[in-house]
Amino acid sequence: MELIGERINGMFKDIREAILQKDPKPIEYWARRQTEKSAHWLDINTGPAVSVEDQPAVMEWLVQTAQSVSPLPCCLDSTVLGAIEAGLKVHRGQAIINSTSADQRKMDIYFPMAIKYNAKLIGLAMNEQGVPKDASSRVALAMELVVNADAHGLPMEDLYIDPLALPANVAQDHGAEVVEAIRQIKMLADPAPKTTLGLSNVSQRCAERRLLNRTFMVMCMAVGLDSAIVDMEDDLLIKAAAAARVLLNKDIYCDAFLKTFRQR
Amino acid sequence: MELIGERINGMFKDIREAILQKDPKPIEYWARRQTEKSAHWLDINTGPAVSVEDQPAVMEWLVQTAQSVSPLPCCLDSTVLGAIEAGLKVHRGQAIINSTSADQRKMDIYFPMAIKYNAKLIGLAMNEQGVPKDASSRVALAMELVVNADAHGLPMEDLYIDPLALPANVAQDHGAEVVEAIRQIKMLADPAPKTTLGLSNVSQRCAERRLLNRTFMVMCMAVGLDSAIVDMEDDLLIKAAAAARVLLNKDIYCDAFLKTFRQR
Repeated sequence: MELIGERINGMFKDIREAILQKDPKPIEYWARRQTEKSAHWLDINTGPAVSVEDQPAVMEWLVQTAQSVSPLPCCLDSTVLGAIEAGLKVHRGQAIINSTSADQRKMDIYFPMAIKYNAKLIGLAMNEQGVPKDASSRVALAMELVVNADAHGLPMEDLYIDPLALPANVAQDHGAEVVEAIRQIKMLADPAPKTTLGLSNVSQRCAERRLLNRTFMVMCMAVGLDSAIVDMEDDLLIKAAAAARVLLNKDIYCDAFLKTFRQR
Repeated sequence: MELIGERINGMFKDIREAILQKDPKPIEYWARRQTEKSAHWLDINTGPAVSVEDQPAVMEWLVQTAQSVSPLPCCLDSTVLGAIEAGLKVHRGQAIINSTSADQRKMDIYFPMAIKYNAKLIGLAMNEQGVPKDASSRVALAMELVVNADAHGLPMEDLYIDPLALPANVAQDHGAEVVEAIRQIKMLADPAPKTTLGLSNVSQRCAERRLLNRTFMVMCMAVGLDSAIVDMEDDLLIKAAAAARVLLNKDIYCDAFLKTFRQR
């Protein structure tokens, strides 16, 4: 289970203020902290407060600041193409581009960009018509992403398909559809594409957020979830990921499996 | 999710001593306690200390003692046929017989018994050759149980198929096979048979038992687990069951979904 730490995101107040003040300390704090908590990647999102024109420079600064204190690669999270490219240009190691949708117009931009920068790419199982209602529509869009990865020469293990989890309190019927979509997406190609989720979405404005997050993560891991953007401060979530890995026989059981998972 | 409280079992020291002393208090305590904790059923197991000859009388006493203080039905858990029948004779409400295997000889006894006493029946996905190694062998044995339910006239919703979870530290490769077996078992008939697990088996002699139990339960619920024999004292397990029900859209989301689950 590859864990992408969600915390360096301008949606959080301390990060928004750090960006506005050009104060590297909160960025460095969360880069170090999530590294210690055993994240594999640091999500980097400028957030809604930064104008489109400013986003490339802010993304560049965030990536450089985070990587100045952490060896981890970043997941460059923006809807602004220029911000993604600015991040890629200064990034050390293999980045993840977050994200393209399954719109052909976007795929024709993002797949070549992923290849140019030797990056991984998150593909959302949605297109200009919005988020699909059921598993089979998600899988159909996932197949378009798989076909485009193949056509553009992106290795299948560098494509991360996100079937899009929605909040349980407003779109409750989507949960089981996402689970079934993940199961089917893992069978679309051999080798299979990877799967990922913006996990905290499932519990937006819900009660018992952490309980819902970790429960949904485990449900999805049972059918093939490979990674997720998560709250690395949530210890029960990390423990659940370690336990699910053991129960799926993906990590060898030992009495210290929690410790082993964190040190992997 | 139907939760069967595991605690009235002669494997536990206080229950073994209660049986030996004919002291109803520990039985009454656990019957009341598991009822308060929102179990649907009380598992009743005389345990290994009671001789085969004594088991029918002990089972009868345990069922009557438990039901004297709890409105819940019982899951009569014994390998001794006479003990099961003694329990059924005094049981109030619809019992679960725990269990038959998929041996034809046993099925020819237990299915008619379930029908005679209007009981539900747990069928283990194993036969005289032991526990199957993979999902497809489990599903083949499950199909024999389904066929026998049909032939004997047991309603499919009264058949609970247990694909047999094994301890993660000695049979780690079985976890994913059990998950896949549950998924397939739910497609064997329409209406589908129910599924169940002796959940605590998965963590026998393991570290982090409760973490492994609740994680495995959620993984199995994602693909169709309907019930399990569980430790009702494990609050995080009960919460995980409630959350999984909401995320699978089987219970309606409300901010008080944990409370609602316990009061159902």
